[in-house]
Amino acid sequence: MTVLITQVHSRYSDLDPQGHVNNVVFLDYLQEARIRVFTQINYSGIMNVSQVMVHQSIDFRHPIFYSTEPLTIETWVSSVGNTSYRMKYRIISAAGVLAAEAESVMVCFDNDKAVPIPDTLRSALMSILEVE
Amino acid sequence: MTVLITQVHSRYSDLDPQGHVNNVVFLDYLQEARIRVFTQINYSGIMNVSQVMVHQSIDFRHPIFYSTEPLTIETWVSSVGNTSYRMKYRIISAAGVLAAEAESVMVCFDNDKAVPIPDTLRSALMSILEVE
Amino acid sequence: MTVLITQVHSRYSDLDPQGHVNNVVFLDYLQEARIRVFTQINYSGIMNVSQVMVHQSIDFRHPIFYSTEPLTIETWVSSVGNTSYRMKYRIISAAGVLAAEAESVMVCFDNDKAVPIPDTLRSALMSILEVE
Amino acid sequence: MTVLITQVHSRYSDLDPQGHVNNVVFLDYLQEARIRVFTQINYSGIMNVSQVMVHQSIDFRHPIFYSTEPLTIETWVSSVGNTSYRMKYRIISAAGVLAAEAESVMVCFDNDKAVPIPDTLRSALMSILEVE
Repeated sequence: MTVLITQVHSRYSDLDPQGHVNNVVFLDYLQEARIRVFTQINYSGIMNVSQVMVHQSIDFRHPIFYSTEPLTIETWVSSVGNTSYRMKYRIISAAGVLAAEAESVMVCFDNDKAVPIPDTLRSALMSILEVE
Repeated sequence: MTVLITQVHSRYSDLDPQGHVNNVVFLDYLQEARIRVFTQINYSGIMNVSQVMVHQSIDFRHPIFYSTEPLTIETWVSSVGNTSYRMKYRIISAAGVLAAEAESVMVCFDNDKAVPIPDTLRSALMSILEVE
Repeated sequence: MTVLITQVHSRYSDLDPQGHVNNVVFLDYLQEARIRVFTQINYSGIMNVSQVMVHQSIDFRHPIFYSTEPLTIETWVSSVGNTSYRMKYRIISAAGVLAAEAESVMVCFDNDKAVPIPDTLRSALMSILEVE
Repeated sequence: MTVLITQVHSRYSDLDPQGHVNNVVFLDYLQEARIRVFTQINYSGIMNVSQVMVHQSIDFRHPIFYSTEPLTIETWVSSVGNTSYRMKYRIISAAGVLAAEAESVMVCFDNDKAVPIPDTLRSALMSILEVE
């Protein structure tokens, strides 16, 4: 199984006047999961690699309410190309409810030009590639 | 012309260790634009209406750097259905560069069920409907 | 021992261009600790009680760097008056270093006037009162 | 007059479940004012100078509600020492109400040791020194 599990804690400051986690913060949870996933697969260079997010989309399924229990984020790589790759996510609330499904496309670059994914990153990505 | 212009100021706290605005914060700019747009078209009920975002997607075109000058967000409504509507956005950096294009789908609801868009909201939306 | 221990996870989005947790976010960690402390002592009404923060001060001792391991926040009540109380905090980084010491003064109010601390809240506070 | 005026816009995301600007965000407003003040006095090096905040305190006077109109932050330097200086702030809401008073102490350092304030920074600070 190549889906990685990350736990992220919501904070009171994630809440908006409607009393639940603001929809923008869902993306922050994804960012946190993405960074932790790379730590889990021993790819420590993730904060320094020259890559940018070029696309992100999210489908909101259910609101998230504050809990001292963590959220679960399932993360996997759905495709790896020459210069870019696609990650997918599912956010499961502390109550066990699917809160959102999302995906991001990242591109590696050098001097403002897309470049092939570095080998070490490619290996890390392939280790969590999930054929759909 | 039905595209509304909103100016949003970035903050130092929007920056991440890479020295530019974190990609999550782009969505915060969209949220701010969305709320201000409804103020501009005199739809003051926007903070209280029972609607949820069900989908959002964004294409990142160019990084945003800190500036004391504001960003410009162009916002318009691209379609209005029975219970849902779609908004589109372009984020232009203080330097005049297209930084991102995005869209959101909102659904009106009552008691956890999608309901027709209230008339006052529908009128407000129609006033900024931009046929593509 | 009446000092309560809360663990808070930093996030990548807490970092600023200097590469460490922005000083404003330290206060967010304190807020999170404060809310969790009340959960720990079974005072579930904390999000709804009519109280406001009237003062907060913080001494920064050491920068906090990103870690997937949690921070430890020590929290205690240092004094309880008629309408107000004082909480103190120590933030210990994941690396075990004292990062900050802080205190907050909260006041209970009703109709914009300070009122005596409700009995249930007073009992909760007294249970973590730490005589210095 | 050496008090500098900065305008900061609140955002919907600054609000918490109580419907007003979360108290942590007040500090973000101060940070934004501090950075803009240095731009105003043509001290462009502020983001790069080796200085740290060692202390901050704030007295909350009045809640801040969301407004599309900006907040006004008054900022001045109240003292300049050999290695450190003190800034003071007043936050005035869009409605014209004093919302908070605060102060910060910054220290210049090099290799983890306090060092004298660089001359260019000292000159900038002296230009907004406000004798109390």
